Amino acid sequence: MLYGALEAGGTKMVCAIGDENGKILERAKFPTETPETTMPQIFEFFKDKGIAAIGIACFGPIDLKKDSPTYGAITSTPKTAWKNYNIVNATKEALGVPVGFDTDVNGSMLGEATWGCAKGISDAIYLTIGTGVGGGVISNGKLLHGMLHPELGHVRLPLVPNDPGKSVCPYHDNCLEGLASGPSLKARWGVSADQLADKEEVWEIESTYIATALMGYAVTLSPQKIILGGGVMHQEQMFPLIRKKFKELMNGYIVTEEMDNLDDYIVPPSLNDDQGIMGAIKLAIDAE
Amino acid sequence: MLYGALEAGGTKMVCAIGDENGKILERAKFPTETPETTMPQIFEFFKDKGIAAIGIACFGPIDLKKDSPTYGAITSTPKTAWKNYNIVNATKEALGVPVGFDTDVNGSMLGEATWGCAKGISDAIYLTIGTGVGGGVISNGKLLHGMLHPELGHVRLPLVPNDPGKSVCPYHDNCLEGLASGPSLKARWGVSADQLADKEEVWEIESTYIATALMGYAVTLSPQKIILGGGVMHQEQMFPLIRKKFKELMNGYIVTEEMDNLDDYIVPPSLNDDQGIMGAIKLAIDAE
Repeated sequence: MLYGALEAGGTKMVCAIGDENGKILERAKFPTETPETTMPQIFEFFKDKGIAAIGIACFGPIDLKKDSPTYGAITSTPKTAWKNYNIVNATKEALGVPVGFDTDVNGSMLGEATWGCAKGISDAIYLTIGTGVGGGVISNGKLLHGMLHPELGHVRLPLVPNDPGKSVCPYHDNCLEGLASGPSLKARWGVSADQLADKEEVWEIESTYIATALMGYAVTLSPQKIILGGGVMHQEQMFPLIRKKFKELMNGYIVTEEMDNLDDYIVPPSLNDDQGIMGAIKLAIDAE
Repeated sequence: MLYGALEAGGTKMVCAIGDENGKILERAKFPTETPETTMPQIFEFFKDKGIAAIGIACFGPIDLKKDSPTYGAITSTPKTAWKNYNIVNATKEALGVPVGFDTDVNGSMLGEATWGCAKGISDAIYLTIGTGVGGGVISNGKLLHGMLHPELGHVRLPLVPNDPGKSVCPYHDNCLEGLASGPSLKARWGVSADQLADKEEVWEIESTYIATALMGYAVTLSPQKIILGGGVMHQEQMFPLIRKKFKELMNGYIVTEEMDNLDDYIVPPSLNDDQGIMGAIKLAIDAE
C-alpha cells in the first residue's frame, strides 16, 4: 500500500510517498509561499501516485478538534497568507483520499514512536529547539491533544543568574522559547548558534534553560524518553551538559530505571531527520 | 454490587463501602500508625461486607508498574514504618478480592473524572496544595503513569521579586511544593494558612506561584480543566487571583474556549471532599 506524507513547515513543504513500513520511496520539496502558489505544486506531486491516504504534519497553531467547524485549518499563524487556510479540506478535495492531520512536532513524535527510539513506549516527548521551541507528546500511547496540543516552548523558567534574559518570545518574558530558541541565542550573543560552537559560556546557559524545562516536563508528563531535535540541538556537545544539569536539578527525587540511565533517557532523534515525514506517513496509515 | 474503597493518607486511613454509582453507603476512619497496628483494623472493617473488589488511593511514592516485582508497595516514603510495605499484596491476601491501586491524587482525579466536574473530559489535572503539593492527571482519557506518576509539586518556578524563597522542599530550591505548600506559608510568614486569611500580600505571592505552575501545566499537559484542592485552597479568595494571574501570564498565546472562560477552567473540587474516596471506589470497579 502507498501513502502520501506532507511535512508542512513554515519555510518548506516536504512531500513523500511511503509504504506501510515507513519506507520512503520518493520525495520532493517546495518552498512555502502562499496556499495559491504552493498547494497546487504539492497536489500535482501526489496526483496519480495511487496513494491510499495522506498524512499532514503541519506548522501551527492548527485546529485539531474533529468536531470543530474549522477542523483542519491553520489558525493564528504569523504567516498571514496561511491564516485560516483549511489545508485538510483543500487536500481532501484535490486528492480524494482520507487525510490524517496533526502538528509538525506531533508528527516527529509519532515517527519516533512508530519506527524510532520511542517504539513500544507509551509516554514520551519530542522537543525541537530551533527557530522556535515546540514539542510533541505521546501520553498513554496516543498523541496528546487535550485542550489544543502541547506548547512546550512556553513554560516559564527562572533566569540564570546574571543573564539579562531578553526573551525573544512576543508573548512571554521568560519562557523556554524566549530564552533558548535560535533567535534568542542570536539576541544574547550577536551571532547565530553555529558560530558559537566553541564558546563554553553559551552552552552553559543554554543547557541550563533546557535542563530546567526538561525537569519540569519529567515531573509533569512522566515521560519514559525525551528526544531533543531541531537546529540548536545539532550542537551535540550539549547532550552531556543537559543530562548533568537535569540530574542535579532532579536531585534524586524520582527513583526509576530511566533516572539511572540518562544517556538513554535524554537522546537525539534516531531517524536521520526523517522523523517528521515518517510520522506523516503514519498519520496517513492511521487515517485510511 | 458493593465495592471497598481505601483512601490511604499519611495521617489517616479513610475506608468506605460504595456502589457502582459512587454512592457511599458506610464509612470509617483509622489513624495511620504502622502497618502492623493499622491494617488489621482496616481489614476487619471490610471483612464480611461482600465487596466484589477494593480500590486503594495511596500516599506515595508507590510502585505502580504492573510488571515490577514490587508492584503494590509504598516505596521511599519518609514514614519509615510503611517503607517497602506492599499494601496491595497484603490487602489481596487478607480480603481475597481484586485490588485496584493508584496514587491518592490520581484517586481524586479519577473521582472527579467519573462523577464530578471532569466527567466526560479526556484531559484534566487535579492539584492538591496542602502539607505537600501533588497532582493526578487524566491524559487521553486515562490516569497518567508513564515513567512513574506525575509529581506536579516539583516543577521549578521563578521567584517572586523580593521573596527570599526559602524552599521547604528537601530536594529542590524553588519548586512549587517548596514555595507554596502549607509548610512553606508557615516558613515565610511564621503562622499557618488559616491565620493569614486576611493578609493580602500572602495570597498575592501564593497565587503568583500557583498561577505560574498552572500556566506551565496548561502548555505541557494541555488539560481541559484544572481542579485545585487541598487545605491551602480552602482560602477560596485565591481562585479569582489565580485566574487573573494565569491570564496575564498566558497573555493570549493559546486561543481556546477554555481560555475564554477561566471561571470554568480553574475550579475547586466538586464532590464535597469525597473525590478521593469516590475515586477509590472507581479503582475497585475497574479492578473487578
